[in-house]
Amino acid sequence: MANKQVLTEFKQEYIPQVDRVLENNIQKASSVKLIVKAMEYSLMAGGKRLRPLLTLATLQTLKHPIDEAMVQASSAVELIHTYSLIHDDLPAMDNDDYRRGKLSNHKEFGAGIATLAGDGLLTLAFGWLTNTSLSDTKKIKLVHLLAHAAGPDGMVAGQTVDLSSDKKQLSLDELMHLHKQKTGELFHYCVMAGAIIADADEQSKKALSSFAWNFGLAFQIFDDIKDAPDDENQDDIDKNTYVNLLGMKGAKQKLKETVQASQHSLEELPEKFSPDLLSSFLSYFMVQK
Amino acid sequence: MANKQVLTEFKQEYIPQVDRVLENNIQKASSVKLIVKAMEYSLMAGGKRLRPLLTLATLQTLKHPIDEAMVQASSAVELIHTYSLIHDDLPAMDNDDYRRGKLSNHKEFGAGIATLAGDGLLTLAFGWLTNTSLSDTKKIKLVHLLAHAAGPDGMVAGQTVDLSSDKKQLSLDELMHLHKQKTGELFHYCVMAGAIIADADEQSKKALSSFAWNFGLAFQIFDDIKDAPDDENQDDIDKNTYVNLLGMKGAKQKLKETVQASQHSLEELPEKFSPDLLSSFLSYFMVQK
Repeated sequence: MANKQVLTEFKQEYIPQVDRVLENNIQKASSVKLIVKAMEYSLMAGGKRLRPLLTLATLQTLKHPIDEAMVQASSAVELIHTYSLIHDDLPAMDNDDYRRGKLSNHKEFGAGIATLAGDGLLTLAFGWLTNTSLSDTKKIKLVHLLAHAAGPDGMVAGQTVDLSSDKKQLSLDELMHLHKQKTGELFHYCVMAGAIIADADEQSKKALSSFAWNFGLAFQIFDDIKDAPDDENQDDIDKNTYVNLLGMKGAKQKLKETVQASQHSLEELPEKFSPDLLSSFLSYFMVQK
Repeated sequence: MANKQVLTEFKQEYIPQVDRVLENNIQKASSVKLIVKAMEYSLMAGGKRLRPLLTLATLQTLKHPIDEAMVQASSAVELIHTYSLIHDDLPAMDNDDYRRGKLSNHKEFGAGIATLAGDGLLTLAFGWLTNTSLSDTKKIKLVHLLAHAAGPDGMVAGQTVDLSSDKKQLSLDELMHLHKQKTGELFHYCVMAGAIIADADEQSKKALSSFAWNFGLAFQIFDDIKDAPDDENQDDIDKNTYVNLLGMKGAKQKLKETVQASQHSLEELPEKFSPDLLSSFLSYFMVQK
């Protein structure tokens, strides 16, 4: 089903371009060196660039040309993703000392500067979207959608429920809703941003939207499976995860169904558009263990 | 010079409208009650609404009609201002327990939720600008300008320098630059937002821009004079303030000159526009002590 080779080639082409755009633009983001350094520290920490890639892959699927402006527009969401990780790691939130194998932002710069680095990246994302060569109408649609996806009824809502339901057992529906807001909304934005830029027809938009929601859900179930302790010890048992709610076997079954649903969504695209590239992104969710 | 009565009447007319727009919209901002409550707690804590009023006063000066959509567009900056206060008060930043006579956001909700409330307000501000009836081109200009003013080369830059220069003596130039970024940029945005919405001519824009920079500087000098301890004790002596740098007499002289410069900027407006309303805002800076 998911052709990993297609994804590998796409990544080889576009990850360096996304990285270059991010690096160049973050260097110019401020006259104050400390805030540039703190933002760059987390932004250039070797992220997979999955979110920008999803927008670019949607553009390619819809046969829209990809130039520098497209890479820039697609990369703005990476600023949002990075800010959310920095704030999430703060002592007042998840209190994580490490991220991607190095010290978390606040361990390196202190919690004050880390808070500001997150604020800076979040604000910059919106400025960034206004600096592309897209039409004003498309820019406004992207700003509108991104503010919704990242805002108090999207990602921030999910993080609020996550933080306040610590040690409280959630139902499967509640957990799915939490993750839809916390991570699903931003994936949905990435795919729909491609649809907006490429002026997608209604049939394509519907198929892509459905793909994106299922992709986001699969992402979270996969994450829980990957992070589940090998022996079901006591440490993680009161965490709200799909593995704890459904058991490992149940979680794997749920992941399989969700990946299939993503695949089926793509088959609803008009015939002129090949589902192969977006379909290849589902290879992220191949369970190794 | 500054006619306080003009300002009083303007405030009586528009503060209730700004408050109503803020209250109505924040209630609809999320399905998650806790984040609405945390954002509302600080947003509706009795702020002076000086920033939205500045945009509205600029619109009125430029003879642009003020309707509900104008009030909404003008109020988005209040979300940014409120977020900055919430994050500023955090233990990792200024660590303030009180704000406007009540517990600061993190003392009421905890630092995690306070961080998220700030993030939510910041994100919402941009979504809010897209939800007005302005043209897409004007909306994009506002988003662009606001992201610059609030971002890592504006407010966030000023806060970074402020945080990292604690206990370090700044020169007058450095202090002025810090405040230009930390508070001046947002005031400048407010005035220029009015100019953008009203399609101001170049002469008006130049006069208004100069007024706004001087207004922001006067605001900060006034703040330092107001907050200076009555007897020059040791507690505040190593704080970077205009009073500590220039002495009380020097600071008052600098304030007087800056208010005069603001006034002169307004006199550069084309004759068809009266400077009286914006001029009345300078009555904020009348030194009582």
